[in-house]
Amino acid sequence: MSEDHPILQLIRRRSTREHFDPDRALDTQQIRELVRDASRAPSSFNLQHSRFLAVRRLAGKERLRQAAYGQDQVATAAVTFIILGDLRAVEMLPSIMQAAVERGALPQGKAAAWVRMAREIYADECRARDEAFRSASLSAMTMMFAAEARGMVTAALSGFDAEQVQSEFGVEDRYVPVLLLAVGYPCGSESPRMPRLDVSQVLAFDHGPLPE
Amino acid sequence: MSEDHPILQLIRRRSTREHFDPDRALDTQQIRELVRDASRAPSSFNLQHSRFLAVRRLAGKERLRQAAYGQDQVATAAVTFIILGDLRAVEMLPSIMQAAVERGALPQGKAAAWVRMAREIYADECRARDEAFRSASLSAMTMMFAAEARGMVTAALSGFDAEQVQSEFGVEDRYVPVLLLAVGYPCGSESPRMPRLDVSQVLAFDHGPLPE
Repeated sequence: MSEDHPILQLIRRRSTREHFDPDRALDTQQIRELVRDASRAPSSFNLQHSRFLAVRRLAGKERLRQAAYGQDQVATAAVTFIILGDLRAVEMLPSIMQAAVERGALPQGKAAAWVRMAREIYADECRARDEAFRSASLSAMTMMFAAEARGMVTAALSGFDAEQVQSEFGVEDRYVPVLLLAVGYPCGSESPRMPRLDVSQVLAFDHGPLPE
Repeated sequence: MSEDHPILQLIRRRSTREHFDPDRALDTQQIRELVRDASRAPSSFNLQHSRFLAVRRLAGKERLRQAAYGQDQVATAAVTFIILGDLRAVEMLPSIMQAAVERGALPQGKAAAWVRMAREIYADECRARDEAFRSASLSAMTMMFAAEARGMVTAALSGFDAEQVQSEFGVEDRYVPVLLLAVGYPCGSESPRMPRLDVSQVLAFDHGPLPE
């Protein structure tokens, strides 16, 4: 494979968008397909912490915009996903493991050991929260690429009042809002992409310290 | 764009690998390119929390395997990245914003406001940690796709002793290890992919509750 593989082009082209086409909606099936792809991201023990609340009605998007300190993309995008992480994902592990065993993806003995290990690890609230953020973020990035592959564009927003999001949208405490992802079709011109640090500023080999 | 776009095929094909070709290394330039692509992931205020420690020597990979509860992929992959999040990323924001202003990606006035806002938000240690996990995870997922586009395969591992990783590899406290990403070339057959929950189990529209 070469340096001009479509995914590499897409990684280099993608940016957080400011503008969305107000006349192009996403239908239910398109939203489901985006969620299906996002769910293919990896997660610890295949716990699949990620949950998705697709806000597509205007009134809901407007309330979400308020909770996101007025960031316009939340309301102008065709749909804005509240991407959540399940702090109690480990409770679903026995049924998740059973499905894996039935598919031949995991031996029975290993599945039982995983359930024990995962319960021990995620009894720690900090680790459960870290994992929810990690897992939901992996899904969010996958959804961004899945959207771009379909000609859509996105804006990932982490600036929002999590408590307000939970109360306004009836989200149970077990789900922590990790990211808002506005998705729609492109519209008009955008500012230049934000530059990135040079590789030499973020990479070290074999041992620290990391670059200053 | 259609449902058989190469990135969608790749999203559906990707899985956490158990086996890597022991005879194929990655050179320095390949590692730098993977990091460059991973760095293109979005981050709050463009803070770019992600840092990468590329462990490629056998002795180092063996020590890392120990810190990862003996998971073999850490040692058998061509390179295993310790992907870290900078808990004090906000300290770099003035210079990051300056670069964005010079490129025309952000007006000067907005840059100054962002610096003030970000300092206020990330004075909260919990938010700084959440953000480090979110940002480093977005980069990790991007690196997985960048590797797959080049014919490589990966294993993302969140099971490791973070303190041990930090002390063994000379990582300063300001960087929290978020994920180990083993990268190399495929070798032999793999178990079937782990199944995923159905979309109906993870998606709600417009308002909670989330599905049980």
